[in-house]
Amino acid sequence: MIGTPLLPEIRELIEQRNFSALQRIFNDWMPVDLAELISDLPENEQAILFRLLQKDVATETFEYLELDSQQNLLTALTQKDVTHILNSMSADDRTALLEELPGTVVQELLKLLSFKEFKIAKTLLAYAEDSVGRLMSPDYLSVKKDWNINQVLDYVRTFGHESETLNVIYVVDDFGKLKGELLARELLLSLPEKKVSEIISEDKIITLTASQDQKDALDAFKRYDTVALPVVDSNGYLIGVVTVDDMLDVAEEEETEDIQKFGGIEALEEPYMDLSIPQLVKKRAGWLVILFIGEMLTASALAYFQDELAKAIVLATFIPLIISSGGNSGSQAATLIIRSLSLGEITIQDWWGVMRREILSGLALGGLLGLIGVFRVIIWAMILGHLTTTWIYVGVTVGVSLVGIVLFGTLTGSMLPLLLKRMGLDPATSSAPFVATLVDVTGIVIYFSVASLILGGILL
Amino acid sequence: MIGTPLLPEIRELIEQRNFSALQRIFNDWMPVDLAELISDLPENEQAILFRLLQKDVATETFEYLELDSQQNLLTALTQKDVTHILNSMSADDRTALLEELPGTVVQELLKLLSFKEFKIAKTLLAYAEDSVGRLMSPDYLSVKKDWNINQVLDYVRTFGHESETLNVIYVVDDFGKLKGELLARELLLSLPEKKVSEIISEDKIITLTASQDQKDALDAFKRYDTVALPVVDSNGYLIGVVTVDDMLDVAEEEETEDIQKFGGIEALEEPYMDLSIPQLVKKRAGWLVILFIGEMLTASALAYFQDELAKAIVLATFIPLIISSGGNSGSQAATLIIRSLSLGEITIQDWWGVMRREILSGLALGGLLGLIGVFRVIIWAMILGHLTTTWIYVGVTVGVSLVGIVLFGTLTGSMLPLLLKRMGLDPATSSAPFVATLVDVTGIVIYFSVASLILGGILL
Repeated sequence: MIGTPLLPEIRELIEQRNFSALQRIFNDWMPVDLAELISDLPENEQAILFRLLQKDVATETFEYLELDSQQNLLTALTQKDVTHILNSMSADDRTALLEELPGTVVQELLKLLSFKEFKIAKTLLAYAEDSVGRLMSPDYLSVKKDWNINQVLDYVRTFGHESETLNVIYVVDDFGKLKGELLARELLLSLPEKKVSEIISEDKIITLTASQDQKDALDAFKRYDTVALPVVDSNGYLIGVVTVDDMLDVAEEEETEDIQKFGGIEALEEPYMDLSIPQLVKKRAGWLVILFIGEMLTASALAYFQDELAKAIVLATFIPLIISSGGNSGSQAATLIIRSLSLGEITIQDWWGVMRREILSGLALGGLLGLIGVFRVIIWAMILGHLTTTWIYVGVTVGVSLVGIVLFGTLTGSMLPLLLKRMGLDPATSSAPFVATLVDVTGIVIYFSVASLILGGILL
Repeated sequence: MIGTPLLPEIRELIEQRNFSALQRIFNDWMPVDLAELISDLPENEQAILFRLLQKDVATETFEYLELDSQQNLLTALTQKDVTHILNSMSADDRTALLEELPGTVVQELLKLLSFKEFKIAKTLLAYAEDSVGRLMSPDYLSVKKDWNINQVLDYVRTFGHESETLNVIYVVDDFGKLKGELLARELLLSLPEKKVSEIISEDKIITLTASQDQKDALDAFKRYDTVALPVVDSNGYLIGVVTVDDMLDVAEEEETEDIQKFGGIEALEEPYMDLSIPQLVKKRAGWLVILFIGEMLTASALAYFQDELAKAIVLATFIPLIISSGGNSGSQAATLIIRSLSLGEITIQDWWGVMRREILSGLALGGLLGLIGVFRVIIWAMILGHLTTTWIYVGVTVGVSLVGIVLFGTLTGSMLPLLLKRMGLDPATSSAPFVATLVDVTGIVIYFSVASLILGGILL
């Protein structure tokens, strides 16, 4: 029953200005589906449709909108509507919106907030970008240890409507120090007369701090399978709560960054289609130029082997075939190791185990490609009808070089991420193109060294 | 306060066989931390420590253990303990364990289950691998529409202990047909006299089916920011529930598969270190051989241009430099487009917009590398003291070829994922090595065609 937006019908109703029919349809929709519909509309129609929504649905829908639609609505809606939305949207979503807007706009918008909301917004914006503080909501419920469950239930019914989550209720002492957490599950299962202190266990509570990196929060959520985590200050006083729904976004951003790094691009901060062409070029040019300059070493290496090349032009024919095999096996190895590192399946301490496995895998894969390579050269020579001993030697040169280069590729691809991690750098930086470039240069040296050994006195 | 396992101290206590001290320490630990500690121990010590845990903590800890530790404990623990664990662990975690064990072992273990649990386990194992059924738990709470909140609360306190989640309670009619859901939030906020029917809205409920792919479930969870989704059969009868904690694992598996495909490897089903070397080679050999055979076309292309090569050996010097630039820009473009597709930022319909952007980006990037290339050739010739008009022409050949090849690379890298998606295939298959190979062959043709044009009559 996942909402398919029915766009043609909606489009027709918009053109007929049949707002009452639209309103009836929208009543059955989830805010996330409404947000998708509105985001897909041209900017001048977004506000028209948005105004048809009921007040509470409107705020929730606004929270789901993409940033550019949110910005558009902020200018297209009346100040009254904007004031309502900004004051009623949840504090963490509001922070996410405000942090993307220019400073002057933020100042204007902050003026629309009530004094209470203004203070909250200011505090949250003061935390560093990518810190837990930016995801935090100050809307949580806290109760005392000596209350019984009935008192807690009463309190929740009275004050719970504003709370970001009711899946966890926090227990604090008289000074606001965090003492424990009461899960909705425990609250629902406990008898009304039971005291909070009988249910919670103080030792086992996991907390975040506002200045922590969002990545740490993500790790904690994954590890403890939890729906919300409390944020405390350095003295253990409860200051906010982070909920798991924000974590899926953090996870997605982290993954995107890793994937883009591995593809040899600087991480994009915006969707592909929203970037201007100069921005798009800038994000790619850096790495591309570095790789290009690195790859220039292949030209130097080949210039060094110019005499051999001149004597045996046939060697040139196999250069791309041979060096690309090293690059491909290196990319494979790098992919495996980077992913295993990020899943925690292997650590730096496992380097020797990894190396042993990659030496054996590299020999096997290199041997396989080497065999195919030898046959390729010999069968080709046979088909062209000029199979001589020389061609067999060329075939063996190609085969032996392949073993060496594939082995070198798997070793470089697997050890580079571990080395980067050891140096405190991000292993994902050992991108597929980076490994390929490293291996290309070495590949040429290996190839011509093997050729000198095998073809010395024959062709060279 | 995320648990650091304190291994040296624990190690000492194990060696002293000081079980009471260990038991005291373990009382303060979370099951997930206990599971990590036990997984890190040698196999013969795992059961010793596991037996120190309290019964309920033991089951929960067992659910968090890695598969090989679970298997080890199944053989090392007494039949009584195994029986307790298998009967009390949650149905979805049990399915995840059983599906990895050999058939004969599963048959033995199923005999240990109570009749009720046996039926549940059999049913869940009957669903296809990677289907929602395998993640589903039949332990949910369902209530009727005409109950009031007080009745629901009473019902939850009595029967809720076994339920997989209490964050959502389902509303069914007298025949078990799903009619709505009651969130813990709504339950906690509503006045005790209010009827369930006044709270729920029947239209807006999102459901899964047991035969659906787990990936669909993941998409629904992401889209609707929810903690649990009901599973219904084809007639709308409620048969189980899937909770969000299982989704982080599904997400991780999907990501790993995508990343490995992009790196040019068949998706591994097990952690890197658990695979035998032959398995590791097998997963990589397929793609590597396909790419190798594809890359053989470069040798054919170069053989075709043999006369040109013989006349101008200097052209050979720049082959790796030039073709790798195409591969690198292609990998970048493929990374961008594959990720944007999987995030839903672009769709196939956007192909023209993407192509336009990539043509402009490709020209800009190619122009940049081309300029650097021209300078490289000319400055190098100057340094070596043999700068002639010929070298300037060679420089221009390199520069112009780079523009063409980088442009071709970005176009191939960006259009191939869209084409694969259009054909109903997985865009992630357009791996970095695959794009690089495609571009290498074309790169040689472009390079020598440009050379014929520019150097015709001079060198060629």
